[in-house]
Amino acid sequence: MTKLFIQDLVNDMTLEEKLAQLTQLGPHYWGLDDTVDLTGPFKELNIKSQVMDNIGSVLNGIGARNVIDLQTRHLQASRQKIPLLFMADVIHGYRTILPIPLAIGCSFDLEACERFAEIAAKESAAAGIHLTFSPMTDLVRDPRWGRVMETTGEDPYLNARVTESMVRGYQGKDLKEKGRIAACVKHFAGYGAPEGGREYNTVDMSLGVLREFYLPAYKAAVDAGVAMVMAAFNTIDRIPASGNSKLLRGILREEWGFNGVTIADFNSVNELIPHGAAEDGREAAEKSLAAGLDIEMMSTHYLNHGAGLVEEGKLDISLIDEAVVRVLELKDALGLFDNPFKDADPLVDEAPTPSVESLQAARELGASSVVLLKNDNDALPLKHGMKIGLAGPFATSIHVLGGWSGTEKDPAVSLYNGISQKTSPANIITAMTGELGSMLEGVFDVEDEIEEAFQQLKDCDVILAAVGENQQDTGEGGSKTNLRLSTNQEKLIWRLKDTGKKIVTIVFSGRPLELKPVLEASDALLQAWFLGTESGNSLADVLFGDYNPSARLSMSFPYSVGQIPVYYNAYQTGRPYDPLYPNVRYVTRYLDCPNDPLFCFGYGLSYSSFDYSNFNVDAADPVVASIEVENTSDIAGKETVQLYIHDVSASVVRPIKELKGFRQITLAAHEKLVISFEITRDMLMFYGKDDQLVFEPGEFDIMIGRNSGDYFTQRIWIG
Amino acid sequence: MTKLFIQDLVNDMTLEEKLAQLTQLGPHYWGLDDTVDLTGPFKELNIKSQVMDNIGSVLNGIGARNVIDLQTRHLQASRQKIPLLFMADVIHGYRTILPIPLAIGCSFDLEACERFAEIAAKESAAAGIHLTFSPMTDLVRDPRWGRVMETTGEDPYLNARVTESMVRGYQGKDLKEKGRIAACVKHFAGYGAPEGGREYNTVDMSLGVLREFYLPAYKAAVDAGVAMVMAAFNTIDRIPASGNSKLLRGILREEWGFNGVTIADFNSVNELIPHGAAEDGREAAEKSLAAGLDIEMMSTHYLNHGAGLVEEGKLDISLIDEAVVRVLELKDALGLFDNPFKDADPLVDEAPTPSVESLQAARELGASSVVLLKNDNDALPLKHGMKIGLAGPFATSIHVLGGWSGTEKDPAVSLYNGISQKTSPANIITAMTGELGSMLEGVFDVEDEIEEAFQQLKDCDVILAAVGENQQDTGEGGSKTNLRLSTNQEKLIWRLKDTGKKIVTIVFSGRPLELKPVLEASDALLQAWFLGTESGNSLADVLFGDYNPSARLSMSFPYSVGQIPVYYNAYQTGRPYDPLYPNVRYVTRYLDCPNDPLFCFGYGLSYSSFDYSNFNVDAADPVVASIEVENTSDIAGKETVQLYIHDVSASVVRPIKELKGFRQITLAAHEKLVISFEITRDMLMFYGKDDQLVFEPGEFDIMIGRNSGDYFTQRIWIG
Repeated sequence: MTKLFIQDLVNDMTLEEKLAQLTQLGPHYWGLDDTVDLTGPFKELNIKSQVMDNIGSVLNGIGARNVIDLQTRHLQASRQKIPLLFMADVIHGYRTILPIPLAIGCSFDLEACERFAEIAAKESAAAGIHLTFSPMTDLVRDPRWGRVMETTGEDPYLNARVTESMVRGYQGKDLKEKGRIAACVKHFAGYGAPEGGREYNTVDMSLGVLREFYLPAYKAAVDAGVAMVMAAFNTIDRIPASGNSKLLRGILREEWGFNGVTIADFNSVNELIPHGAAEDGREAAEKSLAAGLDIEMMSTHYLNHGAGLVEEGKLDISLIDEAVVRVLELKDALGLFDNPFKDADPLVDEAPTPSVESLQAARELGASSVVLLKNDNDALPLKHGMKIGLAGPFATSIHVLGGWSGTEKDPAVSLYNGISQKTSPANIITAMTGELGSMLEGVFDVEDEIEEAFQQLKDCDVILAAVGENQQDTGEGGSKTNLRLSTNQEKLIWRLKDTGKKIVTIVFSGRPLELKPVLEASDALLQAWFLGTESGNSLADVLFGDYNPSARLSMSFPYSVGQIPVYYNAYQTGRPYDPLYPNVRYVTRYLDCPNDPLFCFGYGLSYSSFDYSNFNVDAADPVVASIEVENTSDIAGKETVQLYIHDVSASVVRPIKELKGFRQITLAAHEKLVISFEITRDMLMFYGKDDQLVFEPGEFDIMIGRNSGDYFTQRIWIG
Repeated sequence: MTKLFIQDLVNDMTLEEKLAQLTQLGPHYWGLDDTVDLTGPFKELNIKSQVMDNIGSVLNGIGARNVIDLQTRHLQASRQKIPLLFMADVIHGYRTILPIPLAIGCSFDLEACERFAEIAAKESAAAGIHLTFSPMTDLVRDPRWGRVMETTGEDPYLNARVTESMVRGYQGKDLKEKGRIAACVKHFAGYGAPEGGREYNTVDMSLGVLREFYLPAYKAAVDAGVAMVMAAFNTIDRIPASGNSKLLRGILREEWGFNGVTIADFNSVNELIPHGAAEDGREAAEKSLAAGLDIEMMSTHYLNHGAGLVEEGKLDISLIDEAVVRVLELKDALGLFDNPFKDADPLVDEAPTPSVESLQAARELGASSVVLLKNDNDALPLKHGMKIGLAGPFATSIHVLGGWSGTEKDPAVSLYNGISQKTSPANIITAMTGELGSMLEGVFDVEDEIEEAFQQLKDCDVILAAVGENQQDTGEGGSKTNLRLSTNQEKLIWRLKDTGKKIVTIVFSGRPLELKPVLEASDALLQAWFLGTESGNSLADVLFGDYNPSARLSMSFPYSVGQIPVYYNAYQTGRPYDPLYPNVRYVTRYLDCPNDPLFCFGYGLSYSSFDYSNFNVDAADPVVASIEVENTSDIAGKETVQLYIHDVSASVVRPIKELKGFRQITLAAHEKLVISFEITRDMLMFYGKDDQLVFEPGEFDIMIGRNSGDYFTQRIWIG
């Protein structure tokens, strides 16, 4: 399909057809009996049913058979035979539910992230989906926000690398390829920073902070060729992103050269009105179109007011035309003009179970996402033949797929079922399971049940406490002010500790919770997240040592909610805390809590142990920093060697450290390896006070280590 | 003294003398035996003792006799006989300690705020002080920050009015007047917004937020003629305020026309180095001088590097000259060239007690600062003759002056002593008092003592629980992550509740604490802050109804620390929470906590009750809004009628409401009064996206009521 063809199409379109092409609605708007205009859903949107013949795209219309059917009918009705583009929220897998994004981010395994997207793309494509609203690469620092589960953490560098990998995994080299779908990076920009972690709340930050923390991962997606960018719900500089010209035209298109499609979030054009940024739908349409927002999602102000705005001269028709061209170009890139159904395949889509390959991949991705936070007294791995006690609301629960699931057909493998594949069920004694509600909410007093569990499990060799938060309490709209485990769960763990047996606490959550209250009671602590379909199998692999844990935290775990935000790459202050003088009052500190989090960014244990030595920074050009890593244990394991850099002095204050590279290596027992990093100029650049990317010669601290809190460091002048 | 005289002085000065004039040191640097140069304190600063003869000002050198002595010796040594300027931290009174600023801000009584400053000025002046580092007008939204005690709350309008009043109170019409001192507003700018409420932490916000929330109160001080502005410790736009040219030159001098002196905070020029904003002292001096920071406090980079910077051409001598001129002009304005001791008066300063007038004023200011948060079952006022139980760590404590005291000679009046003046000590039964340490820290288990207190007090008519936080846990360096009362105190209150008697909880604190856990157990709840010297008397006046409580919260009280920041003037969001549909998930909300605070801005009860009616908005030009307020009770009382405005739609998103006026009225029993407000254009203006103050015609909600959560409202178009 040529550019010329698309231009011809656009030239042939009426203004109303163009505006409809820029509108996205849900599948329930099609095929309604609407012989009388302006009833029901159409009345709400103030549109007529005929307009449906020209609508450009469908939100969450899924299932191969539905898509084929709707597309067929649409093409019959469409004057120009322009196919619909089917977009959907495929956040962590479609039929095979994969680990939540926050978990897979912790894998620090970019190939795994790419595979994650590939599996999701393949199954989605078979279900008729052309584009997914993923990856979400919003940087996050506040675990109160429910949607941290959908992003990959607090670091711009890691988020950027994961995002690129996911874009590659979804899109491949050519969107027309079988099994590939278009990706939509979201939410541009800064949606991960709602004030107080409260969903949809105000976002406010300086341009410098936006530049150096929040924007890089979106830009990485653009550089990786992402097809679409979604505008965020929130404001930036007091202007909602969906009507923010500086963001959508200035930074995204003019500066970054993005030529793809931009799209509103659900109803976000309309929400310019409650935001108080537009008086009515007409002004909302004007502001969003002027800002360069191509597609309006689930509201119809473009449709209803676009023509009037053009007539009045308030909006240049060229703005509408260019948006339509971009939408049609994406349809063309997906090959929809030739094959409007793309990969939609009822046979594959409706197969009774996902492919063996998908499930195996999901199991591996799950295992690679589990973070071992503590492992004292050789509590893990479990030994075969042990008498295993298993208690807590997540012991037998299948509600561990994580938010944004629902497209799957199969329930998740429970922890119990996973373990049962490793050891005889006769070796597993369960207690106080299946009480998801009361245990999680902590409303009811369950002292008697806890006592009973204690009696049932006191003779086991080891006790697994499967605790956490309800998965519905995470995800969109899942903001919370209390991040502790429910009181009942904390009590259960402490009472089980009285058995004198080793306690392995396994935490199911979509966010960093406050784990300090159960840390001392737990010999081992495993962050299980929500791992999707294969959850129990992934966890069993880790628990029994068939997978040696390798994940690292992509988000800091706070001591308490009162410490939020706590993250590793904070700016330097004028009165830094010095651990050598812990009682000095007039330094940046709390009286009652450390500055550092309970578990820091990049932290995670292995069943192997690794020694770091021979750190060297070679003052060549470019500077090369190297370190020797040795697996000093008797089992093979993966280690993630991390490079951090700190700019000692600059024209604007710099973060105390920034991740600038990492290398994941597998070392056989007692193997050692020298890892080296080139320190390139672009690692040292930053946005200066004039909003320009600059390199300033001077001193830099070069740090290599196992996590953001444990590293070797050397200062060097780089000119 | 003429301008010419000052110019002559400057022309006559050597560069080193000029730089010394721009340097402030503590009094211990004078009169040291420093025959060998570069020892002790001088070595640290890398200066020679001779330089002391030319130093411009003294930090916290107080006491009439000391000041006279030091000034005399200095004038003998100074070649040009330029007097020292004595500056000090007089934050809430000097000899008579007054309520902490956060408390007096709650008075909503601008005359009281002016009187507050007058009393402090008079006593300070007698002690030889020429300038106080007050008012601190940093807007605050995070009670974790210890220094909220030193400011007046979360509202730019209230902070601005209080600040003006304090500047007037300190400075009067002429700084030469007896009993007046110069004021220094601080901390320019944004120091009240450290991330996580952690002292000295990074501050980050957009320019729009800085403009509309944080800057107005500093500007009010400038417009009121404040003599000095102190630069903050924190960064703005990633540049420390002390080296921030855009702030100190751009906004403060060029835009606001400030002609007074700017000063560093303690060591803040030097702290450009740990901030990473300067490589060394030389660069720190260069940046601060170039930014327009006149006086360096407690570091000596100006002295040590200023001359070199001029020689190298890195700094224009005119920058130094203009700073010196401003310092000398301030000395001249204070009359120091004629009377270098100003009001220093050993007889007054060393008098055994403050004046009766001061103490009486302190008592009244204290009573007007106490906020009645709850008063069910007519728990208050107390009746004479009642059997009063009094328990808790603050029952008999004299440690209620509040942070930033130490210049007083007299201890505070304890709650017990205050009450004893109202009723026979035989009517007061105390229990579990005097255990400030263990009760406050909650480390020790005091179950037995609590049980004993229960037994001792169970036959009283009413029980006062005097609880709170240690005053050392507030103020500078007093950041905390846990804002609950200690567990022991919460337990005490709940156990006392079992007596079935009325419980009056009196909270001593320097910040909003989490009071939800004791709210149900308390029939009445009184926020007592730290009220200074007359604390117990002020509280007794309130408790017995001799003062009818009138204060209103100037800062929101959160449900829990997980809700922070919570404040009334938040920006509108695109998905506002609707209380009519409390279970809708996809709106801005938490799953486990309301959006509103426990007690909102402007809230506070009286022993009187007031009815509001006949709300009217008259569409004249200017619009006039009026309301009738009636005291429906049998006792006279003060009510604070509050005007809020909301701009419905604008070019940038606007706050959901903003205080734009208030009127404090005293109504006799059953008296009524119509209160009206003119809605002027300047109330409706805001900084638009181009950083210009704009008025945009459109719809506005006009709200009048008793607090930010309880009001009448009407929408009106204003063109």
